[in-house]
Amino acid sequence: MQIQNIDVSSYPNSKKIYVDGKLHPIKVAMRRISQYPTVKIVDGKRIETPNEPVTVYDTSGVYTDPAVKINVNEGIPRLREQWIEQRGDTEVLPEITSEYGRQRLEDSSLDAIRFPKRHAPRRAKEGVRCTQMDYARAGVITAEMEYVAIRENLDNAERGIPSHITPEFVRQEVAAGRAVIPANPNHPEAEPMIIGKGFAVKLNTNIGNSALSSGIEEEVAKAVWSCYWGGDTLMDLSTGDNIHATREWIIRNCPVPVGTVPIYQALEKVHGNVDKLTWEIYRDTLIEQAEQGVDYFTIHAGALRKHAELISKRLTGCVSRGGSIMVQWAVNHGQESFLYEHFDEICEILARYDVAISLGDGMRPGSTNDANDEAQFLELDVLGELTERAWAHGVQVLIEGPGHVPMQKIKENMERQERVCHQAPFYTLGPITTDIAPGYDHITSAIGAAIIGRLGTAMICYVTPKEHLSLPTLEDVREGVIAYKIAAHAADLAKGHPGAEVRDYALSKARYEFRWKDQFNLSLDPEKARRYYMESRVNDTETDQKFCTMCGPNFCAMRISQNTADRCDKSMD
Amino acid sequence: MQIQNIDVSSYPNSKKIYVDGKLHPIKVAMRRISQYPTVKIVDGKRIETPNEPVTVYDTSGVYTDPAVKINVNEGIPRLREQWIEQRGDTEVLPEITSEYGRQRLEDSSLDAIRFPKRHAPRRAKEGVRCTQMDYARAGVITAEMEYVAIRENLDNAERGIPSHITPEFVRQEVAAGRAVIPANPNHPEAEPMIIGKGFAVKLNTNIGNSALSSGIEEEVAKAVWSCYWGGDTLMDLSTGDNIHATREWIIRNCPVPVGTVPIYQALEKVHGNVDKLTWEIYRDTLIEQAEQGVDYFTIHAGALRKHAELISKRLTGCVSRGGSIMVQWAVNHGQESFLYEHFDEICEILARYDVAISLGDGMRPGSTNDANDEAQFLELDVLGELTERAWAHGVQVLIEGPGHVPMQKIKENMERQERVCHQAPFYTLGPITTDIAPGYDHITSAIGAAIIGRLGTAMICYVTPKEHLSLPTLEDVREGVIAYKIAAHAADLAKGHPGAEVRDYALSKARYEFRWKDQFNLSLDPEKARRYYMESRVNDTETDQKFCTMCGPNFCAMRISQNTADRCDKSMD
Repeated sequence: MQIQNIDVSSYPNSKKIYVDGKLHPIKVAMRRISQYPTVKIVDGKRIETPNEPVTVYDTSGVYTDPAVKINVNEGIPRLREQWIEQRGDTEVLPEITSEYGRQRLEDSSLDAIRFPKRHAPRRAKEGVRCTQMDYARAGVITAEMEYVAIRENLDNAERGIPSHITPEFVRQEVAAGRAVIPANPNHPEAEPMIIGKGFAVKLNTNIGNSALSSGIEEEVAKAVWSCYWGGDTLMDLSTGDNIHATREWIIRNCPVPVGTVPIYQALEKVHGNVDKLTWEIYRDTLIEQAEQGVDYFTIHAGALRKHAELISKRLTGCVSRGGSIMVQWAVNHGQESFLYEHFDEICEILARYDVAISLGDGMRPGSTNDANDEAQFLELDVLGELTERAWAHGVQVLIEGPGHVPMQKIKENMERQERVCHQAPFYTLGPITTDIAPGYDHITSAIGAAIIGRLGTAMICYVTPKEHLSLPTLEDVREGVIAYKIAAHAADLAKGHPGAEVRDYALSKARYEFRWKDQFNLSLDPEKARRYYMESRVNDTETDQKFCTMCGPNFCAMRISQNTADRCDKSMD
Repeated sequence: MQIQNIDVSSYPNSKKIYVDGKLHPIKVAMRRISQYPTVKIVDGKRIETPNEPVTVYDTSGVYTDPAVKINVNEGIPRLREQWIEQRGDTEVLPEITSEYGRQRLEDSSLDAIRFPKRHAPRRAKEGVRCTQMDYARAGVITAEMEYVAIRENLDNAERGIPSHITPEFVRQEVAAGRAVIPANPNHPEAEPMIIGKGFAVKLNTNIGNSALSSGIEEEVAKAVWSCYWGGDTLMDLSTGDNIHATREWIIRNCPVPVGTVPIYQALEKVHGNVDKLTWEIYRDTLIEQAEQGVDYFTIHAGALRKHAELISKRLTGCVSRGGSIMVQWAVNHGQESFLYEHFDEICEILARYDVAISLGDGMRPGSTNDANDEAQFLELDVLGELTERAWAHGVQVLIEGPGHVPMQKIKENMERQERVCHQAPFYTLGPITTDIAPGYDHITSAIGAAIIGRLGTAMICYVTPKEHLSLPTLEDVREGVIAYKIAAHAADLAKGHPGAEVRDYALSKARYEFRWKDQFNLSLDPEKARRYYMESRVNDTETDQKFCTMCGPNFCAMRISQNTADRCDKSMD
């Protein structure tokens, strides 16, 4: 299989750099963007002043390292395999332990779509606690913890930017449940990253086919594409055929943690008939996916039977697939949700694979009208209770949040979540701040995401322009990721994340000095910035002119301002 | 001349309605979107429940009224001509009084590009005060004031939505300087609108050619296009050839107030040589443009000689064209800015044409690094002083604001502006909340615009995806306008603007009931929403299916949720 139609070979003037760990033999990947010098002509002489390179957080993995040869049929290098092996806390299982996984393996009709390479699954040894939270509580700084500490700081130390984010700080945050490092030992391809209020705001992207569209190749391409543009984690929300095989291809080629919503696949297994769902089928699905390497599961264990009545009072009912499935199941069976009833058993399974739990907000509002209502906050209280139960098992916890929330109601969401969920990291979908712009919901929601990110939300789940209308194309994934990189970075600036302003400063300096190429290269989307600029310059191959088509040569404020400044400088000599 | 390549004929399922005034014989235009009924099948019987139409604020003027035949060579109907005539406060001048205007008129080489119809200019009679502010202070509710009061409320009264926005409230706000109705008697084609904290947040769009690109036809098309998508006012920032003629075409065909920055044209008159600018040339330009019908002028009278030194300390100097021109002029001449020195004379001229003044922020930060610095706030203090001077002449005042401001520094901008500028309406460009996303600055800035709109900014100036890179195309204008409609509406919801939530409610209800066509028709961009939906449904002509390609038929949360709700309803029977 080839990755179709996408170019993720490199960013212009960037190179991959690797920073060594001090506690562990690790190499932390980041991207360094070199710059052209500042040129001034003084008394007819050309004076060049060099500009420091700018190092940026890099989610693109080995795809942008020319030293690594990519073969999608092999999967990417298994970065963490040795670390995990050396910890000695897991055992390699002789075979897949989920029933469904075994069935698929034995079905030779699936050979054509199967990922060609097999890796035996790992699981915590009997009685051994192996999650990042367990280690953190035990006072151990894992390789993953040191990795994320270095990653968050980039080359700040070199630049003299102070930072409170040390490996020990990471350990404390993970131990307290305020941060999560999703790190299933069965996904050693993923580069460690951290989700927590005390760190850079992260963004998740959703991909996945539905019964109506999208094949395996397309989904792998979307996954790589999403990482290239800046997605920090990736949820595979596939609901159509061949979920198992699609997921395997994605995980083996994915340099960021992968999340899923296991109830989707469980429902496929009973052919979409909610009433036929059982705990046993769901349980087998958890194991199946954990052994493939899923790093976090969205589990709607807070959507309860009593929510049915509250839903019926709403304008837009329940808009969470997982939530609506579980409430329907509970109502139809006259029983409480099996996710809630079996929650401790779920945690026992997750703990053995260090799969983090992302407690789903099945009752998130589907319209601004329903924001902050009884259904939503009642579920949030349940999530708070479940957080403590999961932590008791050493399972790392994220709390999912809305959804559709008008601006004036955003703050209450954050404050309430922190209070009732004991500061577990908040992970929100947007929120969308007005319902009237289908086709532009990456924008309606980037507004909400920036605001809630600033208030302390640790990860924001992207929304593409196709939200509410259809599945995103590659171009939509790019638009969604960039909109959310903007929201996350705006929030990082506002939070005072160490060194967040370095890139803004460098890009603005390049802009002011008419170093157009540097302006493009430092931007979130160099290709688009350059294309927009060049489109208006049809007769012109020279980029570094001292004006653009916006104002033309006579009206460039920055040029006039520089002339004035130069004159001021001289008059002060 | 034809309006090229744009379709502004109608919105689907919409009709233009006109609401009668009570105090004045006026007809206030708005757009009413009809909806399909809600259909339920109960016991095999089809039950239809009608859905109320939704009325929305409409900036598109007669372009969307099929009863009006558009002829760009004629201009659109002169709505306010009779009102102005009847007030008897202005006189029709026998000829254009600006020297430059007369030269252009007499130059037969310009006949080919000249707008074919001539209207004699109007000016306040000697000694008569004719601005909306003068009338408001005198206790008079003008037709314009009643028009905007009705317009802000749409059909809220019919829907039982209370509103404090009465004609008398409008009068009080205008009298106090807290709101502005830009209404030059020489632009009677414009439908009255109001800019103030107590009203819906408005958005301005910028168009205009530079020396490098864009002709008259293209600019008129952009103007109409901008109004069609929702621009509340329009600034013509042309700096290339034929500014005078381009502006005439735009104004005669523009149903919203038009603003300009007269210094741009003044500079063209001296062939781009800042040092040759004089007060006399500038003064003549003010009169020339006022007699064409420009409704508000951006005047950078707060950019002073002493700013030069402050600019030179900044990362990105001065990024306002007008500001940089004036500071350069002042430094080079060793004199104070002639805009500041002649400010009272400027106001005398503006008062006679009821041209509002938009005090330009020549010192707005051009990078997040420079936000809220000494240069910016020193100028703001000057603008506060100038506000009171303009008000003394009865001239309506807007205060322009930044620019590039990180989220955590936005609030200070709003609070300080209100304090030092005596609550004159704030009119901000964005602000852009991070500098790292050229190509996406409609998004970086929609975040800032929504936040500052919520805090009380009265009008937000759009930014297109091409900002910092080149001039916008028609498609960019549309993207910019919609991004800002989103920001403005999100702010209106948060501010509790009367009835703002009606459209969100209706669209969400349509979404939940799978009335896809209504969902499209109620949206800000029906064409795009429909196109995105249909693109993924290649084999399918039926729109109103109970699912979309995002989740497919088995996984639609809203369908499952409805089934559950129906079941709950039944079990409660």
